[in-house]
Formats: sequence, C-alpha cells, structure tokens
Amino acid sequence: MKIKRIKVTPIAFRDAPLLNASGIHEPYALRSIIEVEGDNGHIGLGESYGDAPVLAVLKAMEGSLVGLSAWDLNGLRARVVETVASLADGVVAGAELAPGSHPSKQVANAYSAFEVAFLDLQARSLGIPLVELLGGAVRREVPFSAYLFLKYAEHIDATYKPDRWGEAISPEQVVAQAARMIEENGFQSIKLKAGTLLGPDHEAACIKALRQAFPEAPLRIDPNGNWSLETSLRIAEVLAGDLQYYEDPTPGLDGMAELHRRTGIPLATNMVVTDFDEFRRSVAQNSVQIVLADHHYWGGLRDTQILARMCDTFGLGVSMHSNSHLGISLMAMTHVAAAVPNLAYACDTHYPWQEEDEEVIQGGKLPIRNGCVAITDAPGLGVELDQDQLAKLHEQFLAIDIRSRDDVRQMRKYQPDWETRKPRF
Amino acid sequence: MKIKRIKVTPIAFRDAPLLNASGIHEPYALRSIIEVEGDNGHIGLGESYGDAPVLAVLKAMEGSLVGLSAWDLNGLRARVVETVASLADGVVAGAELAPGSHPSKQVANAYSAFEVAFLDLQARSLGIPLVELLGGAVRREVPFSAYLFLKYAEHIDATYKPDRWGEAISPEQVVAQAARMIEENGFQSIKLKAGTLLGPDHEAACIKALRQAFPEAPLRIDPNGNWSLETSLRIAEVLAGDLQYYEDPTPGLDGMAELHRRTGIPLATNMVVTDFDEFRRSVAQNSVQIVLADHHYWGGLRDTQILARMCDTFGLGVSMHSNSHLGISLMAMTHVAAAVPNLAYACDTHYPWQEEDEEVIQGGKLPIRNGCVAITDAPGLGVELDQDQLAKLHEQFLAIDIRSRDDVRQMRKYQPDWETRKPRF
Repeated sequence: MKIKRIKVTPIAFRDAPLLNASGIHEPYALRSIIEVEGDNGHIGLGESYGDAPVLAVLKAMEGSLVGLSAWDLNGLRARVVETVASLADGVVAGAELAPGSHPSKQVANAYSAFEVAFLDLQARSLGIPLVELLGGAVRREVPFSAYLFLKYAEHIDATYKPDRWGEAISPEQVVAQAARMIEENGFQSIKLKAGTLLGPDHEAACIKALRQAFPEAPLRIDPNGNWSLETSLRIAEVLAGDLQYYEDPTPGLDGMAELHRRTGIPLATNMVVTDFDEFRRSVAQNSVQIVLADHHYWGGLRDTQILARMCDTFGLGVSMHSNSHLGISLMAMTHVAAAVPNLAYACDTHYPWQEEDEEVIQGGKLPIRNGCVAITDAPGLGVELDQDQLAKLHEQFLAIDIRSRDDVRQMRKYQPDWETRKPRF
Repeated sequence: MKIKRIKVTPIAFRDAPLLNASGIHEPYALRSIIEVEGDNGHIGLGESYGDAPVLAVLKAMEGSLVGLSAWDLNGLRARVVETVASLADGVVAGAELAPGSHPSKQVANAYSAFEVAFLDLQARSLGIPLVELLGGAVRREVPFSAYLFLKYAEHIDATYKPDRWGEAISPEQVVAQAARMIEENGFQSIKLKAGTLLGPDHEAACIKALRQAFPEAPLRIDPNGNWSLETSLRIAEVLAGDLQYYEDPTPGLDGMAELHRRTGIPLATNMVVTDFDEFRRSVAQNSVQIVLADHHYWGGLRDTQILARMCDTFGLGVSMHSNSHLGISLMAMTHVAAAVPNLAYACDTHYPWQEEDEEVIQGGKLPIRNGCVAITDAPGLGVELDQDQLAKLHEQFLAIDIRSRDDVRQMRKYQPDWETRKPRF
C-alpha cells in the first residue's frame, strides 16, 4: 500500500479567553488536519498544530511522501528529517505551553502528525480499530479530567459572541465551572490551569474551594513553570494534602528536582520532560514522578507507547497532556491511552472548551461519558472527516490574521505593559 | 482475524561440543517451533527455547490462545501471565547462558515466542514482510559476526559422527576456525566465547592470534561472567587495544560497573541486563555500554525495539545475543535488526554451527553473504516450515533424554569433579 496523496489543511476554531502563564488565549486556536490517502482509496486522518512553523513543515511534506509505503514509518521519519533540514528555523511565542510548536520539536511533531495518519490508514485498510495496531486495548474507556481555567467572560477583541462558560475569576466561579463541566461529562478528576496573573495565592484558594466542593476528586494544579522555587515551596505547604500531583510549578529539571527533594510531593510535567533526552536527564536527578505524554510532540502513538514503557521501567507514572484540539486528536489520544497498561491517571483534554458547531468530524463533538472517551470497533480512529466543516474552519483560518499562537501579544491587549517573564511569581 | 489453532513442537538438533563457562554443549540442542494459525488460513511461525520449563508454558498456552485476535498482543501478554501463574516453577541449569530459559523469564520468553508468530501471522495475512510492521527496514542486510568457540573434535557420548569443524583448542586452531567461518560467510567481526576450562590467559592468547590473523576485524571476547573482577582487570590490560567490546567478563552489575570505571573499556552484556528493571539498574551505575538484545527473552520484536530506543536514549550501544537456533529465529532476529536504526554492531549468531541437514525451514539453511542476512520482500518472516524436517527433528527430540540444557552435567562426563563455580577464574 503506497501513499497516493497527502493533504494538509490549516483550520481555525473559536477559543475561549483562558488565562495562563504566558497571558491569555487568543480568540482562535489553530490546527492542521492531515489526510493521507493510500492507493487502495482509504484515507488516514491526523491532527496537529496549525502554527506557522509547524504548518510550513507539514505543507512541505505533502509532496515528499507520495509513493512511500504506508507501513514505512522509518522512511517517514527519514523524509521528515530531510524536509526539516531544508527549511529555515522559525521562532514561536507561547511554545512552552505547546512544546510541539517549538522549532526544536519540528521533526518530532511533523513525524507525529503523519504517523497517526499512517497508522489510521493502515488500520482502516485492515478494517480494524487503530488500537489493535498498538497491541490491543487494555481498557475500552479512557478517563479524562475536568480541565479548568481561570477566564474572562469574553475576549477583548472577539468578533463573535461570548462563550457559554462565563467569567471564572473567583474561587466560587471556578467551582461553578467545575460543577458544570463535571455534570456534562462525568469527570472524576479535576485540573486547574494556574500560573496566571491572578497569582499563586488566589489559585491556591481556588484549589481549596474545589477540595471543599469535591471532597473525593483527585486535584491537580498546573502553573506552567511560572512560579519560582520559593513560591512553589510555599504553595506546596498550603496544598500538599490536596493534590494528586503538582504539575510544572517551577521551571527546569533542576528546580523540579529540588522541589521534589524538599517536599516529597509527586511532580508531573509536560514542560521539563518533552523528549527522550530530557527523560534521561530527569531520571538522573529525579526531577519528576509523572510524565504527561503527548503524541503530538513525542513522536506519535508508537513513541508514546515507548515513553510509557520507559516510565514503567523507571518507576514513573504516565498520563497525557493536551492543547486545544478537535476530535481527531481526541481519538488518537484515546486509542494510544487504551493500549498503555500503566496509564494510572486521567488524561488532560481541552475538548469541553470546543464549541459545538466547530467539530471537524462527522456527527459533531464526541461524547465524554462518566469522564471517559470510549474506543469503538470502527476501523482506524473511528471518526470520519466532515468536509463541509473542514472547508468552513479553513475559511475561518484564512479570514483571521493569527498565524502563530501568541498568548503574550494577546494579553497586551488587556495590559499594554504585560511582559514575558518566567517565573513571574 | 482470530487465532484458530496453536501448535508447539519441541525439536532437537545436533550441537557441537562447544566449551563455555558452565562446561560444554550437549550433543543436542532443544528448540520449540510455534505455529499460530489464523481463521484466514495463514500460519505465523515462531521459534524459542525447547527446555522443559519453557516448553511447559508454551504447551500450556496452546489452548488458551484460540479465539484471541491476532492483533491483540496485550491480550496475549495477559494470557501468558495467567498461564505462568497457574504453573509451578522449575529450575534450569545453564540458564545464565540462555537467560530466556530461566524461570524468572517465563512470562517474557513465552510472550516473545508467540509475539513473533502473531506478528508473522499479521504480516503474512497482509502479504507484507514482517519488518514493515516494525516500521520498515532501515537496512536490507543485517551484519552478523563470526561466533568462535573453543571445542573438542567430538562429543564424548555422541551417537553420531564428529562435526566438520574439528578440534579448536590451540590459538592456531581457533584462527583456522575463524578463517573457515569467514570464508564461508564473509563475516567482518569476530567473537570468541571464553570463560572455558582452558583459562583466561589461553583465551587471551587466542584473541592475540586472531588480531594478528585478522588485523582489521573488530574482536570481542565473552567469558560469560566467569572471571573475577581481578582477572577481568588483568586480561583487560592485555587485550585493551584489541577489543571492540568486552562482553560479560565478570558477574553482576556492580562488578561490571567497577570494571568499566577502572578500565574505560566498553562492556557489553547479555547477562547483567536481561530485562527492563536490570536496564534501569545498569543505567544508574553505568554497568554496561552495549546491551546485547535478544527478542527471545526481552519480550519479542516490539519490546526489542523499545529496548533499542532506550539504549539510544541513555547513550548505550545495542546489538544482539544468540543461542543455538534455526532459521525461524535467524529471520526474526534479522527483521527486527533491520528496523533498529541504532544497531551499530554486528549481531551474534550460532547459525554456522548448525548442520546442513537439520534446518526446519523449506530450502535448507539460509545464506549468510558478506557476513549479512538479507530480508526479502516475501510475506512475514519470509520462510516456510518444512513439515518433514519438523517431524524428523521432533522424532529426534523424542528419541533423546535431554529435556533441559545442562552444560555442567555434560562436562562431568569429561571431568567427573567438574563443579558449578562462578567466577571460576
């Protein structure tokens, strides 16, 4: 089975004004939708970042993969390496939140994007669910967590009406957001994005309020490395008993190692362990105890499985990181998570934040029930592309001027003196 | 595609009187040949140990896999775990030479045996070479090394005529063995099995003679952990400039770490790193620099790929260990080696020691040209079972009384006071 055609389509979809360490989400999130057609007529799907530097590599790959065997993942990797080497490097603001959009990850993220589509094509051609190619499901339902954000009621500059979630600044509003998200999706675990301009004490108060409202739910807080070691230590004392894990409170492998040494609190990361070399360095100094995998920048689904096995080998936990994404990514995450025996924490997903009318797959948004996404017996990823929706979201991409995510630039629209500074607190 | 039938056939084939750390090879080597038939009529092949404890697990699996999806490797693993738990443990002499036959490796080795056959069945059903399921070939020809043994001209107790290799005790005889093996197979690298009763100084003299006869060939010596740290240090001084790597001179992760620390010589192993937990422990103290993988006990071809990636991550080299084996194992080794980008050393194989009339695959022994085994475009492993040969070798198994490899017992036929003692020197 040879590759006959590759199509990479950049899209934009509405994104809520979610606060984070860099600043605030822009009114639109960017993604790329990948279609890989085999000479047997089957089409494999992929979804990845839509930021300009990533998109440039993905688009450059369109021609170079035609004729390759759909089984030849080593050949795919070699061609990605060649293509990346032939392109000039770019720079991306906000890349620390989406490590896959960082130029240093160009090979891994482009390979990842196509690897999923190749595997999907393989599985569709065979008429089997993708998870079967990963060794089969050890669970049919994959647990995700409620991913809470501090947020404004509306964007300062949006041309569309406010999202349905409303403002979440006070602890009470955050609890209300959690209650609604849990009611709609049945989540059992709760994660709060922190590191925002509201500051560590306010965010810790939100966790305390969540603890009171949801006494049994595992809680996590993720300041995206925006707190100093001192601040992280101080908040650790406040929250120690409340947290399932403490995600990327402070920057760097050294800082995380020191924090764990002094507190004993399990630390999770999607920032200091983002590739296999960082994994090695983290192991050497016990920087983190849980790695949040993300197939979009770890090298696809197979490499995510390898990462999971490495975590098992070195006594680390494994779960999953998320960026704003649509249903193709959700199902890719679900299929690989279903095949990872040692996945012991509910995965992250931004999926509840996505608007109902902006899913790119047929049938609209996928259901999350009891906090879980289920794999089905449908071939491949189990979802089909809605070409009308794809065209609509591509038109939306063409109509806006955002080409690379920049949460700092967006924050300056609210606070002109806002600066990139990490750790901020 | 469901599993319809499993057949495990123990076989015995003639083995030469090869000296090693435990003693000497018995006149027959044992293997198991695995046939996994899918409901589409295709049959996947596997080959593994034939020692009683391994065979007991493999035979016990025959019934328990029927009805399983041929894609469900996680399901396979779960059923192996169940089966092993239901059987009593055995003990195997000589297991340090064939780690896969050690009871602690029962799950990994039984899983490995069937994993290869499952993958072969998958690939045959698709009409593609097995290597494609492993991500595609990064090389079409896999290099192997000349695997030399000190040996007697004939067995003390064989009922068959002496092998064609003759005695190899003196350095000159070892060089002659190497010359013949290289002439016949084109090997570029040379490995000498050491740790024998002839002693370290004699074996070091053999390496010196090989160096003189083959000035350019990478050389390795493998005493199978039979030398003390002191002896290993002493021989390291003698051979330092001659060795590509020093394989398992001294026992244990601690001993190897100390030896490397004091000599800087790259150490290879198939004895102190035989599973992922030992990998972790080795990394922590830099015990070894090259891991000799073996899909028969590392968990099959996919786990061998994971091991290779771990070696890459932690800056270790990777190559391949061998026990006495036939063509199915050779092709499984070749397919996985073809898909491992960071394989930088010629692999070990006992294959040249196998007699021409005792191959179990159609067409007889596979060619080794320029020291390499080539993968082909034939489906799966690319070899077919010769049922007449299988029946003949199974009859031979039934006719002998060897049921578990025991090189110590065999050596006592030559030297009644021979004892298990490690390190011996």
